[in-house]
Amino acid sequence: MKPAYRFNPAFQTPQGSPIRELFKYTQQPGMISFAGGYPSPALFDADALAHSGAAVLRESPTACLQYGATEGVPALTEALRALTQQRTGGKAAAENLLVTTGSQQAFELLLRVLVGPGDCVAIERPAYPAAIQALRLANAEMLEIPSDGDGMDTQALEQLLLAGARPKLLYVVPTFANPTGATLPSVRRRHLLELAVRYRMLVIEDDPYGELRFAGAPQPLLLEVADDVPGGADWLVYLSSLSKIVAPGLRIGWMCGPAEILRRAVIAKQTGDLCTAPWMQLAAARYLRDGCLARHLPTIIATYKDRCETMLASLRECFGESLEVTVPQGGMFIWARWRDGTEATTLLQQAVIENVMYVPGGAFYASAADPARLRLSFATASPEEIRTGMTRLRTAHGKLRDKLQD
Amino acid sequence: MKPAYRFNPAFQTPQGSPIRELFKYTQQPGMISFAGGYPSPALFDADALAHSGAAVLRESPTACLQYGATEGVPALTEALRALTQQRTGGKAAAENLLVTTGSQQAFELLLRVLVGPGDCVAIERPAYPAAIQALRLANAEMLEIPSDGDGMDTQALEQLLLAGARPKLLYVVPTFANPTGATLPSVRRRHLLELAVRYRMLVIEDDPYGELRFAGAPQPLLLEVADDVPGGADWLVYLSSLSKIVAPGLRIGWMCGPAEILRRAVIAKQTGDLCTAPWMQLAAARYLRDGCLARHLPTIIATYKDRCETMLASLRECFGESLEVTVPQGGMFIWARWRDGTEATTLLQQAVIENVMYVPGGAFYASAADPARLRLSFATASPEEIRTGMTRLRTAHGKLRDKLQD
Repeated sequence: MKPAYRFNPAFQTPQGSPIRELFKYTQQPGMISFAGGYPSPALFDADALAHSGAAVLRESPTACLQYGATEGVPALTEALRALTQQRTGGKAAAENLLVTTGSQQAFELLLRVLVGPGDCVAIERPAYPAAIQALRLANAEMLEIPSDGDGMDTQALEQLLLAGARPKLLYVVPTFANPTGATLPSVRRRHLLELAVRYRMLVIEDDPYGELRFAGAPQPLLLEVADDVPGGADWLVYLSSLSKIVAPGLRIGWMCGPAEILRRAVIAKQTGDLCTAPWMQLAAARYLRDGCLARHLPTIIATYKDRCETMLASLRECFGESLEVTVPQGGMFIWARWRDGTEATTLLQQAVIENVMYVPGGAFYASAADPARLRLSFATASPEEIRTGMTRLRTAHGKLRDKLQD
Repeated sequence: MKPAYRFNPAFQTPQGSPIRELFKYTQQPGMISFAGGYPSPALFDADALAHSGAAVLRESPTACLQYGATEGVPALTEALRALTQQRTGGKAAAENLLVTTGSQQAFELLLRVLVGPGDCVAIERPAYPAAIQALRLANAEMLEIPSDGDGMDTQALEQLLLAGARPKLLYVVPTFANPTGATLPSVRRRHLLELAVRYRMLVIEDDPYGELRFAGAPQPLLLEVADDVPGGADWLVYLSSLSKIVAPGLRIGWMCGPAEILRRAVIAKQTGDLCTAPWMQLAAARYLRDGCLARHLPTIIATYKDRCETMLASLRECFGESLEVTVPQGGMFIWARWRDGTEATTLLQQAVIENVMYVPGGAFYASAADPARLRLSFATASPEEIRTGMTRLRTAHGKLRDKLQD
C-alpha cells in the first residue's frame, strides 16, 4: 500500500521544468544543442576565479568557512553595490542590497514575502520559465502581458489595469529578455514605472543579461528610470546575477530595493538557507575588486556577437522566409517562429534524431502557446557547430515536411 | 507618505531570529561568547579544503562553474550516500538523496512541499529556533512536545495524538539536540516511528551533530530504526549537514527519504536556487573522498570533549547548586536552569557589561518559556576563555543578586 502523503495542493502532481525535461537529449553523443539557457563554459575565466578562490581562503579562512551574515559578506555587498551604481552611470545609490543564492532565490524570496495563494502577478508573454514555475508553485494567478519586438507592451498593461486587474507584482526582464531577446525602449520603461506607482504594483526588474550588449544603444535600467518617476523608487526591486557574466556555479545573485522589502527578504532568507556560501561570495568579491570582470567581459561580448551573427546568417541561409527571427542586440537568445506551419514540438522529435536541439516555445507561456515558436541559444555552440547544427535542422525540417506530405 | 506594500500576513511585522539579535554584542571588544551555534573556526581543516577546492577547479572547471543538476553533483551525492550508509552501519541504503544549500534549506523545502497555513507540525519543547521561525513564517500551527533529559517524551506525544492532535510533520533533533544536548534512547526512537506510521505523520530527523559524540554509547539513527518498524521508512526523512563537521561556509546539507517526497523537494529547489554551488559540492566531495573527514573528525571530537568538561567543571565551581545543568554526550551545547530565581534575560544585560554572553532560553520556545533557562555553547571558546568567561558570569550573577537585594 502506498503511503498517503498529504502534499500541498501545488505539489500533488507537480511538473518539473519543461526545459530540464529536454536535458536528457543533451547527453546524446554528438548532440549540438541550442536549447540551454547556460552561458558558454569555454568563456569561464577559470584561472582568475581559481586565483580569487585560493587567495581569499588563504587570507581569510574563517570568513570563508564560517556562517556569514544573511545580508551578504560586506566585501561582496560593496562590490555589487559599486557594479550596480556603475550600470546606472552613478545615478542609483543601490543603498539596500541583499546577496542571494542566484537571482532565482531573490525572486522566490520576494514571492514568499509578498505573494499569497490567488494573488495576481503580471509577467511578460512569453516569459522566463522558472518564473512561471515559481508562480505556479506559489499558487499565484498569472496575468500575461503581451509583448512585441520592443518587449512588454505597456499600453496593453495599462488597458488591463484600467479594466480592473490589480497585480501585486510585475516581473520583467527589460533588457535582452528570455526568450525573446527584446529590449524595452526607455519610453516604455518610464510608462511602466508610472503605472507601478499609480496602481501600487511592485516591479521586479530582472537583469541577468544587461551587460551582454553587442549592438544598439544602451537603455537605462528601470532602477535608474525609477529615480526620475515620482514615487518610482518605492515600487522597483532590481535583481541581477553573476551567472551570465562570471559563472553560474558561484550561485551569486543580488537584490536592490526599498528597505522595508529587503528587511523582510533577509528574514525569509534566514530560514531559507541562512546565507549564501561565504567562500563563493568572497571569491566573487575578489574577482570583481581585482577588475577581472571588466577585463574579461569584452571577450564574452565579442564571442556572443560573433555567434549571434553566425546563427542569424545560418538561419537565413537554411530557412529564408519560412522562419521569422528576432535580431537581438545582446543576451543569449534568438526567438523564432515558423511561417510555414511547422510545429516546434513536432520538429524537435525529428531534430533530436539529426542530433540538434532547441526549446519549443510552449515552455515560455503560462497559458496556451503559439506552436510555431522556438527559442535558440547562440551562447554555447561555436560558429562551426552553429553552422553544422543549422544544416542538421534543415535536414530535420525537410524530412518532417516530406513526412507530412506523404 | 510611506508606500503601502501588501505583504503576506506572516511578513507584515516580521521578527528576525532572536539569536541573531544578540550578535551585535559579539562585536564588543574582548567579548567571550557562549551564545553562537557556530562550530569552532580554529578547527576548520582549511588547508585540506583549500587543496580540495583548487584540485576540483583545476580538473573540472566546467563542472565547478556551470549550473549543476538540482539533485546535486553526482560525486557528492555518492560521497554523502556512503557517509549516510556508514552512519547506519551499512543498514540504510540512502538511495534517494538530495543535496541542499545547508540542511536549513532541506527543512524549508519540506515545509513548501507539505505544510500549508494552519497545518499542524510537532516540534520538541524546547526546539531549534530557526525551525520555529520557519514554521512561524509558513503560518503552521506548532504542537510542542515536552522533552526531558532523554529528549522528546514520546509518551506525551502519544497522549496528544490519542487526544486528537494530527500533526502532518514532526521535526526532531534526536542526537545532541539544540538546545538541550539530549539524546533520544532507542526505545523512544522506535516508539516515535511506530506513532509516525500509525498517525501518518512524517518524521524529520535532523542530524547535524550526530558524529560529534565524545561520551556514552551510540544510538541508532531514526533512519536505521525506520527499517525495523513496518512502514517506518515511508514516514522518515533524514537531514544532515557538513556545517558542524566540515564547515558551514560550504553550505552543504542533504536529505534522504521516500522518492515521492524527494521528487517534489527537487521541484521546489528548482525554483528556490536551481542548485547548490557546484564548486562547493565538488570540493566537499573531494574532501570526503580523500578521507579528510575521517582523519580530522577525532580532533574536533577531542577538542569539544575537553571544552565541554572544562565548561561543566567551571559551572560547578562558579555556581554549584544554583545552576542545574545537562551533561551532554556530544554536540555543542549545555542547557542550564537557574535554581535561585535568576532570570536569564535579566542576567544577560549584566553579563554583557562583564563581557560574557549566552542565549536566554526564551529563543527556543514557540510559546511561553521558562525564564530561568539558558543555552551555553562550549564549541568556540578555548578552555582558558571558558574559565575566564565563567568567572565573569559569576561576577555578573553576583552583581545582579546584589542589585535585586538592594
